[in-house]
Amino acid sequence: MNYPFSDKIANLKPSAIREILKAPSDAETISFAAGNPAPESFPVEDLARLAADIFRTQSTVALQYGVTEGYAPLREVVAKRQKEVFGIGRSVAAGDSFNDTTIIVSGGQQGIELACKVFCNEGDVVICENPSFIGALNAFRSCGAKTVGVPLCPDGIDTDALEETIKSTPRAKLLYLIPTFQNPAGLTASLEKRIKVYEIAKKYGIMIFEDNPYGELRFAGEEIPTIKSMDTEGLVIYGSTFSKILSAGMRVGFVVAPEEVASKMVVAKQSEDVHTNLFFQILCYKFITECDLPAHIQKIRDIYRHKCGLMIRGLEAGMPASVSFTRPEGGLFIWVTLPEAVDMNAFLKATIAAKLRVVPGVTFNCDTEAPSHSFRLNYSTPSDQQIVDGIDKLCRVVRDFVN
Amino acid sequence: MNYPFSDKIANLKPSAIREILKAPSDAETISFAAGNPAPESFPVEDLARLAADIFRTQSTVALQYGVTEGYAPLREVVAKRQKEVFGIGRSVAAGDSFNDTTIIVSGGQQGIELACKVFCNEGDVVICENPSFIGALNAFRSCGAKTVGVPLCPDGIDTDALEETIKSTPRAKLLYLIPTFQNPAGLTASLEKRIKVYEIAKKYGIMIFEDNPYGELRFAGEEIPTIKSMDTEGLVIYGSTFSKILSAGMRVGFVVAPEEVASKMVVAKQSEDVHTNLFFQILCYKFITECDLPAHIQKIRDIYRHKCGLMIRGLEAGMPASVSFTRPEGGLFIWVTLPEAVDMNAFLKATIAAKLRVVPGVTFNCDTEAPSHSFRLNYSTPSDQQIVDGIDKLCRVVRDFVN
Repeated sequence: MNYPFSDKIANLKPSAIREILKAPSDAETISFAAGNPAPESFPVEDLARLAADIFRTQSTVALQYGVTEGYAPLREVVAKRQKEVFGIGRSVAAGDSFNDTTIIVSGGQQGIELACKVFCNEGDVVICENPSFIGALNAFRSCGAKTVGVPLCPDGIDTDALEETIKSTPRAKLLYLIPTFQNPAGLTASLEKRIKVYEIAKKYGIMIFEDNPYGELRFAGEEIPTIKSMDTEGLVIYGSTFSKILSAGMRVGFVVAPEEVASKMVVAKQSEDVHTNLFFQILCYKFITECDLPAHIQKIRDIYRHKCGLMIRGLEAGMPASVSFTRPEGGLFIWVTLPEAVDMNAFLKATIAAKLRVVPGVTFNCDTEAPSHSFRLNYSTPSDQQIVDGIDKLCRVVRDFVN
Repeated sequence: MNYPFSDKIANLKPSAIREILKAPSDAETISFAAGNPAPESFPVEDLARLAADIFRTQSTVALQYGVTEGYAPLREVVAKRQKEVFGIGRSVAAGDSFNDTTIIVSGGQQGIELACKVFCNEGDVVICENPSFIGALNAFRSCGAKTVGVPLCPDGIDTDALEETIKSTPRAKLLYLIPTFQNPAGLTASLEKRIKVYEIAKKYGIMIFEDNPYGELRFAGEEIPTIKSMDTEGLVIYGSTFSKILSAGMRVGFVVAPEEVASKMVVAKQSEDVHTNLFFQILCYKFITECDLPAHIQKIRDIYRHKCGLMIRGLEAGMPASVSFTRPEGGLFIWVTLPEAVDMNAFLKATIAAKLRVVPGVTFNCDTEAPSHSFRLNYSTPSDQQIVDGIDKLCRVVRDFVN
């Protein structure tokens, strides 16, 4: 049957990464393609104990319908922590010109998609760093919005190009950014760039979605203020998640947004899934209030500092001088760029033949037809041994293509 | 700030029911407004035991990212059970002209919303029974689709009016129906009507979404085949949920759809929440395979047969002859209709003053401006005593308005 699919969905492809992860592999295959947190970063014993508590004392609440905004005690502790750690959250009572509201969403992904749905009619434009997170790009496309890319520099988005793009794109409604440990590039925007971006958004009245899923995962360098912490006008929607610090599979994230925006996102969320899994919302609340979250996060940072260091040392030892790669101060990803002369299709086939998995850079392009000579590496999922062996193998494959 | 919200979201109101549930109430307030399963219908002890098992033996899988389609073993047992109980699921291997695919979604709500997203451009039309489930109507609106209602008769949708509506609505893309224990009306479509609806859909090439969240909750009368069981052409998307039989708060539902449609829904779902809470998907799988689901469902049916009977007897004893109400054979709701002379605003105010909560019929209208002299009662949430006392009180309020 010839199904009359909607325009926005007809040409939407499943995430290349998730397809790569489904590709046949064997025990010898080493994958640097995932974006999965290290399994040892999940505090299994604490979660098991707290879950048993919930079944014993709160099962009627935890298994019943909840409110769309999220479990109120969780919203409160998240708001408090975001204020303390990231300087986020305005309130009229504190003398600000508007109130921010914290809502719980079904993973960081849902926050991104809801923001687009709330602001974009079909044919409207979301401006993104290029390259950017494929999950976000596909969310915008699935709402019927177009994605327009602005080049990403080592210190953040190219702000001159950003201003030009906004000027020449009358239907631009939203600016999507991952300023800290960007996915896929592993880069972090400087304070100057963040200030400049906020000024541009203010000048042109465009909303910003600041995606910060990796913000807690800094293992080197100095904290840089979030763009949301500069938001005096109510222009910034801030999204984050518990996926990288407690459990990815539970799908619990959050959004901090001006209350008028948050209330529209809540109405849109109600139509998508009524509310987020309530049991795990309560579990997150209990973990934050009954366990030592900062100590747990420190443990994860130590794991990733070690794994990232291992991967960087492997790349430094084995990559030809003409190959560049980023040196992240946190997050999950390294971005490797090969010389333009390399035939990327042949190279990617060779990595697969070598039983390696990387994510081709084209995956992250706003313009799906544009070429890329980069690929993304993840260091959180593979074991130490896999990192050492796999990077050694990868460098050998690269050296076959780069003299 | 004057936010430039999208057209589809700008005028979308939160569900009136969920707002009513948030309204101030005290211990004396009796609510017939919710659609919550009875708390005693959740198999808490079994779930607690199985959850502890998962933490002990499968925590790495259960807390990590999963695939968007859903946990494969759960998809398999759901497909098997739907085939056995509801005659659902075609396969080329069995001689059918297409394959059906079962996917896991974040509650029945997400299945409905994804179906609309996959088929409707902004401005397209979803034809619904009138009245219909507010969560579905809002999902269609949140996708930018319009809802057009066709009157619901005691034996199902008015098929003559349906055919006329399709003919006069060139942008109609989807037909949304709850044939069994309809929400809000509590009515069930006859076999003849179901056959006729499928014939009309086939004749005009329009897709059907058959929503069956209450199908397992029959406590009287005979099973009637689902429309999906008649689907020889791949025109029917079938949605259901574990919300009414295991836990509403966990947000686990499923969809059975022709594989080409299901694969588009998966791509759209990936952009919304990547996948459904994996821990609870595994929990559902374990409950189905390790516990006695049919016996558990029988227990729930017994609870609702009793509660519905109690409410019906109260209504029969106290309502004036000019008031009509439905007598459901399953599900969660009774639909009460007052004479047209009643001032519904004054009546609803009087119910609130009497510390009662019902859902006004206008909530369920496809045309939000159309009047309604009906209201919805729920019998699954209140206790037996609340049903007896509340219905007695409600009948007294009605008698103040109806002579």
